[in-house]
Amino acid sequence: MNEFDLIDKLRRRVEQAHSSASSFTLPASSLIRGIGDDAAVIRTEIGKNTVVTTDLLVEEIDFRRDTTRPDLLGHKALAVSLSDIAAMGACPRWALVSIGLSKKIWSSGFVEGFYEGFFRLADHFDVTLIGGDVSSTLERIFIDSIVIGESVKGGAVFRSGAQPGDQIFVTGYLGDAAAGLRLIERGARLQQTTRQLDDYSMSRPSSERSIDHLLLRHLQPEPRVGWGLLLGDKQLATAMIDISDGLSSDLNHLCSESKVGALVDASRIPIDHFVTELCGRRALDPLMLALHGGEDFELLFTVKAENVAKLPRRVDGVPVTRIGEITEATSGIRIAEGSKIWNLEPGGWEHFKG
Amino acid sequence: MNEFDLIDKLRRRVEQAHSSASSFTLPASSLIRGIGDDAAVIRTEIGKNTVVTTDLLVEEIDFRRDTTRPDLLGHKALAVSLSDIAAMGACPRWALVSIGLSKKIWSSGFVEGFYEGFFRLADHFDVTLIGGDVSSTLERIFIDSIVIGESVKGGAVFRSGAQPGDQIFVTGYLGDAAAGLRLIERGARLQQTTRQLDDYSMSRPSSERSIDHLLLRHLQPEPRVGWGLLLGDKQLATAMIDISDGLSSDLNHLCSESKVGALVDASRIPIDHFVTELCGRRALDPLMLALHGGEDFELLFTVKAENVAKLPRRVDGVPVTRIGEITEATSGIRIAEGSKIWNLEPGGWEHFKG
Repeated sequence: MNEFDLIDKLRRRVEQAHSSASSFTLPASSLIRGIGDDAAVIRTEIGKNTVVTTDLLVEEIDFRRDTTRPDLLGHKALAVSLSDIAAMGACPRWALVSIGLSKKIWSSGFVEGFYEGFFRLADHFDVTLIGGDVSSTLERIFIDSIVIGESVKGGAVFRSGAQPGDQIFVTGYLGDAAAGLRLIERGARLQQTTRQLDDYSMSRPSSERSIDHLLLRHLQPEPRVGWGLLLGDKQLATAMIDISDGLSSDLNHLCSESKVGALVDASRIPIDHFVTELCGRRALDPLMLALHGGEDFELLFTVKAENVAKLPRRVDGVPVTRIGEITEATSGIRIAEGSKIWNLEPGGWEHFKG
Repeated sequence: MNEFDLIDKLRRRVEQAHSSASSFTLPASSLIRGIGDDAAVIRTEIGKNTVVTTDLLVEEIDFRRDTTRPDLLGHKALAVSLSDIAAMGACPRWALVSIGLSKKIWSSGFVEGFYEGFFRLADHFDVTLIGGDVSSTLERIFIDSIVIGESVKGGAVFRSGAQPGDQIFVTGYLGDAAAGLRLIERGARLQQTTRQLDDYSMSRPSSERSIDHLLLRHLQPEPRVGWGLLLGDKQLATAMIDISDGLSSDLNHLCSESKVGALVDASRIPIDHFVTELCGRRALDPLMLALHGGEDFELLFTVKAENVAKLPRRVDGVPVTRIGEITEATSGIRIAEGSKIWNLEPGGWEHFKG
């Protein structure tokens, strides 16, 4: 198989899915030209704006081949970009993938597994692969994942709209992915073969299940597409960002763009009991994982006080928790832990130190 | 400087350019949100479709750091994607760049040079940088360049529209980039510092000028944006592709998508006198470079016979040449060289052999 064979195969996969699509799915006719030309052509819809994001995954920086699987990487590559589209309150529609890999990895069956995981997630959210590029590299794998979404005109949610008095929320639980990464670094490996989305098996014994759960939160993150759509559609969020660098960093980004401060209540930060148990056994501080651990891909958003009651408790089974309040910029970004209040400095990942 | 500093710097560069844009440039208001959020948001225009492409450049595969310069790489990364948008008959508007590089290269000033070259070309075509990603790598550089354009509804030109009797054209000259690459492989290096677009100096002595010209055709390709726009606007091309893999490969792609054959007249293929002279001195066959050498980034397109007279001779100073005719698929893809006719097999670059 050369790269043209792969592109043909991906094109047939997408065209078959489109031709067999039920009337419940989005109209295939919005895609005028997908894989197989110099560029893809999308019909723009009246009343909609275009939202676009791109995210890199680099071997030995973002993942190691011996601690994940090709299908989980395919899932994660798409998931991280879906998370950005969700953080704009937009609906993901189209994806492109650029991938570089060595001839040795090419002939190992890596790409088949990668696209299996990619399409499993893409199909789940009715996202269509419309293009990309493939190149050889001398050694390591890198992946660039591009997702294009739509938002109703005036409906996109920016980082910059938070105002003093707005309440701060996060979806799901924080620190899971960081705990999973630490487990991997200490030698833990997945026991189960695959987790189906929305179908996390409860039939395994507890400790194995808890480890697998945390590993998968790092290896196979679930983008909060449903929450993003709801917050965009109902215009409930004044500002939003996804937690990719870590709560402390991403809250700093949101506050900086909005020119506001924040006060977070440490006791309200949602931490999974799996993380608390793990930290208990290993003398780790779960709050530090929740504050500074990256890659949870939960949504961090702000809501006007009078709109808080309009928020649903859960979307797609994922809860939401109020963790604090937006303040004036002059107060800074602070966290209250018991009777102590301290400044919440960004503590997330930096590729290049300043 | 860390990656957040770079992103801030790029954002200020773009925002300043927008705020000082004259009324001749495209309205900045089409961009609702650029760099600095989870994703970019573009206002979609009524009557326009969205065209999107992505292209990889990988160190040691597509370029070597010791034979090019950061600014030329920044230029080329954008140019190859602009070429794809041109090949759709569309107008380029927005760009995103994902780049991975080592800490050592990061601190060498590479990114400053890279974005200098990138913005020089982007400004020339009124293309705005709206996003991207930056990551560390262990060693080598890779770049993924994404360009989004617009085409009038129904105006995009595909690879699939050629019909028997259509005349086959190429812009510019073929084989220059392949000749330039061969010169580089044999140790030739650029003498001049920078070529301004549309301002190739004629004041240098001839041999040095010819070598620089061929090196730059490989290192700093000029996308045929003006030709693409004209052919899309006037609906003169029935099919189009850009020549990135080589004429033999790309004509095969076009014919395969259009389900037609072709007959090319070898004597009509436009070959620069610089290439002919170089090949004469080195016992190379200029026709082989023109047929199978990749990365010319000229446009290959087909025109109905009755529309040939409507083509301008030049656009932006770049000529166009008729090189053959589309035939029935059963005739195959052939080339006539004097009295001989042979099958034109694709001879371009493959990353992974089948």
